[in-house]
Amino acid sequence: MAAVTYELIHVCKQTGARLGRVHTPHGSFDTPVFMPVGTQATVKGMSPDELKEIGAGIILSNTYHLYLRPGHELIKKAGGLHRFMNWDRPILTDSGGFQVFSLAELRDITEEGVTFRSHIDGSKHFLSPEKSIEIQNALGSDIIMAFDECAPYPCDYEYAKKSMEMTTRWAERCLKAHKNPEKQALFGIVQGSVYEDLRRESAKQLTAMDFPGYAIGGLSVGEPGEVMMEMLEKTVPYLPENKPRYLMGVGSPDYLIDGSIRGIDMFDCVLPTRIGRNGTVFTSKGRIIIRDAKYAEDFSPIDEECDCYVCRNFTRAYIRHLFKAGEMLGLRLATWHNLRFLIRLMENIREAIRNDCLGDFRNEFFRKFGYDTKTGI
Amino acid sequence: MAAVTYELIHVCKQTGARLGRVHTPHGSFDTPVFMPVGTQATVKGMSPDELKEIGAGIILSNTYHLYLRPGHELIKKAGGLHRFMNWDRPILTDSGGFQVFSLAELRDITEEGVTFRSHIDGSKHFLSPEKSIEIQNALGSDIIMAFDECAPYPCDYEYAKKSMEMTTRWAERCLKAHKNPEKQALFGIVQGSVYEDLRRESAKQLTAMDFPGYAIGGLSVGEPGEVMMEMLEKTVPYLPENKPRYLMGVGSPDYLIDGSIRGIDMFDCVLPTRIGRNGTVFTSKGRIIIRDAKYAEDFSPIDEECDCYVCRNFTRAYIRHLFKAGEMLGLRLATWHNLRFLIRLMENIREAIRNDCLGDFRNEFFRKFGYDTKTGI
Repeated sequence: MAAVTYELIHVCKQTGARLGRVHTPHGSFDTPVFMPVGTQATVKGMSPDELKEIGAGIILSNTYHLYLRPGHELIKKAGGLHRFMNWDRPILTDSGGFQVFSLAELRDITEEGVTFRSHIDGSKHFLSPEKSIEIQNALGSDIIMAFDECAPYPCDYEYAKKSMEMTTRWAERCLKAHKNPEKQALFGIVQGSVYEDLRRESAKQLTAMDFPGYAIGGLSVGEPGEVMMEMLEKTVPYLPENKPRYLMGVGSPDYLIDGSIRGIDMFDCVLPTRIGRNGTVFTSKGRIIIRDAKYAEDFSPIDEECDCYVCRNFTRAYIRHLFKAGEMLGLRLATWHNLRFLIRLMENIREAIRNDCLGDFRNEFFRKFGYDTKTGI
Repeated sequence: MAAVTYELIHVCKQTGARLGRVHTPHGSFDTPVFMPVGTQATVKGMSPDELKEIGAGIILSNTYHLYLRPGHELIKKAGGLHRFMNWDRPILTDSGGFQVFSLAELRDITEEGVTFRSHIDGSKHFLSPEKSIEIQNALGSDIIMAFDECAPYPCDYEYAKKSMEMTTRWAERCLKAHKNPEKQALFGIVQGSVYEDLRRESAKQLTAMDFPGYAIGGLSVGEPGEVMMEMLEKTVPYLPENKPRYLMGVGSPDYLIDGSIRGIDMFDCVLPTRIGRNGTVFTSKGRIIIRDAKYAEDFSPIDEECDCYVCRNFTRAYIRHLFKAGEMLGLRLATWHNLRFLIRLMENIREAIRNDCLGDFRNEFFRKFGYDTKTGI
């Protein structure tokens, strides 16, 4: 029995988007889903109970960060990441690849793996497919990710091809290294930059290995939104219908909707938490900067249409005051609202899929929200 | 009908400590009580619901800070401080006096009041008995404090005498300026530094004005604990039995117990929240610094005897990790636990008073906790 299975419930007749459910050893979650990011074993500012209250079905945590601090061995001693952070619902961990490649000047890539220096203390480390899986096995997350190379954007065809091919070889090594497939599902990651034939080839090579789920990586790295959508359209058809599909690093409302329409089931992004801490909050009419002077005496909630604890209890004027005064509660409330906003958006997307009207929902949402073609990070 | 009344329920036969209940327009709270401090209209890191969950019966907020930011007029427009911060239980505001006197180089005291410069932007302001009451009337707190001069420690007799006498004259001006006595109770503040006769004289002068409650100010400013306790013993007998007695700025466990034993009903202090943010937490066996390396693999709760959300759900190892990683949740959890620790201590003190055994409770508590003669700030 596979650790993680995907149940297809309904396909939207208007758009082709999928309503589904993913079953894991720590329970099930409905898809399309947005996964809040808990980089260092905590979704910044949120308690586990609050994450449940806003309806988070699964969260993501970062292998790179946990490996460096507090260390995967310590987390293993604590009984695994779920117990360490007191989160009993599903967890997905990334492979650490994206983070070490982002270190730019601090890393060196070879076929064997990546040598890098810690952003914390400059100490030297080595991450490989085998090491990444070893760490993720120790963490005990329900879904673990293959160690891939996330090619930068822009990226020439030759580099993208070589990188994609190495990612396939690394995926094979990850499969071999994986010690715990009956409790942790290893997802493969499709690469290939913005080249249709490379994406197709990557998808074919990985699906031949029969992973329990597939991610699409290397997007939302600076390319135009239209290119991202085109790549989804060229890649998704080569992914099996009976496995979940995860678009990595995407979390702006527009891409959550448009990704769902292209058959994506899972998304993650630091966007809602990061912009929240900077004082930017989502509303049904678009983003607003809550620190702005114009909200000083605005005694309405962040979003009249929102059902979250923050919007039921606090005004824009109060939250602005908290930000101006440097109060932690301001960061908490903005984060809380933004996460609930995206999770509620996903609930609405699922409802629209069920009712075969995600296209209509999309148009209505964008009419009020305003279209945002930025990647949103 | 007075805005605030005190109901004496029981006097501990072993110690003379008082079990009581204070009734306010926003409900009642049991005494002796510890009031968490919400300086800028928020108890740092805590939501109002969390404060209720830990049993906070009343909180304190600071007039000086709210006057400067966001301004009392804005809070009045919001419907008062309760509505602004979404706290529907009692609030006590201080007068701003302690803060402006603490500005040292930035203020100038005359009989009329205090001219000072804002710690935020250096702008010039004037605070007087009348202005302080005007601000507190706008805030709408249930208990407001007279504008007093908190003499420094040490302080020579002549200065202390003059200062105490001015505080009495200022208390009269506060009474006259108070616009809302049927909804907000104005407490007088006994001063007199560490001089027994001045304390007695101050208490006599203020009680003659018949305030609905009395604070003892100017203690916990650096004097030895024995001196603080002596001053309480010399002052409390001159305060009426049918009014609440509030010892300002005190919040270490030892002084909460020993103050209660000397007839004090109300306490406030930033101690639990401030040391919590620095990574120091209370346990039944004394304070520990949760950041210490020795807790890295300690998978027990902060305090085995504690009933709080934090101790029921998180380990020392996890909270240490949050602090080391600079995560907001660490500050939240340490604050949360420390506040619950003190509020539970007050619950235990009240129970011991009811059972006429506060002296026994004191000895048992100190035996485990270790006596701490520091003022704790």
